[in-house]
Amino acid sequence: MLRYAAPLQKLIGELERLPGIGPKSAQRLAFFLLASADQQVEELGRAVLDLKAQIGLCRQCHNYTTGELCPICEDPHRDASAICVVEQASDLMALERSGEYRGVYHVLGGALSPIADIKPSDLHITHLLERIREVRPQEVILATSPTVEGDATAEYLRGLIGQMPDAPKVTRIALGLPVGGDLDYADQVTLARSLRGRTVMED
Amino acid sequence: MLRYAAPLQKLIGELERLPGIGPKSAQRLAFFLLASADQQVEELGRAVLDLKAQIGLCRQCHNYTTGELCPICEDPHRDASAICVVEQASDLMALERSGEYRGVYHVLGGALSPIADIKPSDLHITHLLERIREVRPQEVILATSPTVEGDATAEYLRGLIGQMPDAPKVTRIALGLPVGGDLDYADQVTLARSLRGRTVMED
Repeated sequence: MLRYAAPLQKLIGELERLPGIGPKSAQRLAFFLLASADQQVEELGRAVLDLKAQIGLCRQCHNYTTGELCPICEDPHRDASAICVVEQASDLMALERSGEYRGVYHVLGGALSPIADIKPSDLHITHLLERIREVRPQEVILATSPTVEGDATAEYLRGLIGQMPDAPKVTRIALGLPVGGDLDYADQVTLARSLRGRTVMED
Repeated sequence: MLRYAAPLQKLIGELERLPGIGPKSAQRLAFFLLASADQQVEELGRAVLDLKAQIGLCRQCHNYTTGELCPICEDPHRDASAICVVEQASDLMALERSGEYRGVYHVLGGALSPIADIKPSDLHITHLLERIREVRPQEVILATSPTVEGDATAEYLRGLIGQMPDAPKVTRIALGLPVGGDLDYADQVTLARSLRGRTVMED
């Protein structure tokens, strides 16, 4: 019978719940931490606890931030005439890493999915339309993932935005991305190319 | 330029210091935690902090424990006439998983290594000899890893124990383990077989 000390067993259990970490990795990590300096373990624990306590959503674009606005929305050098719509904040970070884009973002919080029961009202879509009405950008770039759900979400948004009076140009990032892939995993060059090759959406 | 919120950047940095977790995995884990329920993240953070605060070393065998003695040393059903000597507590856990052994343990805290400058005085060897003198076990099983360092440590211990008056039988776990391998990574069947096939050490 296995006899871990309770706090060790507890930590292994919590680590196993993380994506990509199985029982063996969880155990390995826990023993690594046990053998590490107190201070390093303390810093990791504090960093985990601080994460949710200190981070909220930008009231403009729903990116993660410690303040009212995220660093991108606050930056006066970003071009507010282009809004890039992404599913998740991690997708936004991936695009930022490509270094290609100087506009602002709008994080939907997911993609439409009948299977996962994610409806338009579950995403920050109403707010996106309000922003477009207020800010009147020249271009809205739909950078949802090139998956069935991401494509459907892009089509749905294009329909909504196209109906607006004085509608901005609506573009979709080019399929330089492997179809069916995850935007967050794409390499920087592919992301930069897909931004550069974006095309106007038409009926 | 990359613009993570400070607490997010901090957590990613801390996660990257863990073994087997690169920049991409660290980021993935951090975003997973951001999207997780507050309670789950809180539990993970607390588990990390509790680890070092609540866990110490068993004063008898140097296994990890929350009390004075570890659960194995406290268990009256374990056979105190056999002491199994391992390098690390994680090796002890690996042997426990094999279900083959009912004796007690002694954790050395490493193996002798001229390269890493680990000398006999850096390991719990003096205490092992004291325990043998006091408890007078019938058998001492040397279950250090089948590496150059582990073999050298086993040889060194056999020499010391063999010189004691009324020396116990000293055995070495069988090389059912792949040579050069890490005891902690071995499968349970191999570990069970290597325990069963242990041999008496002779000059």
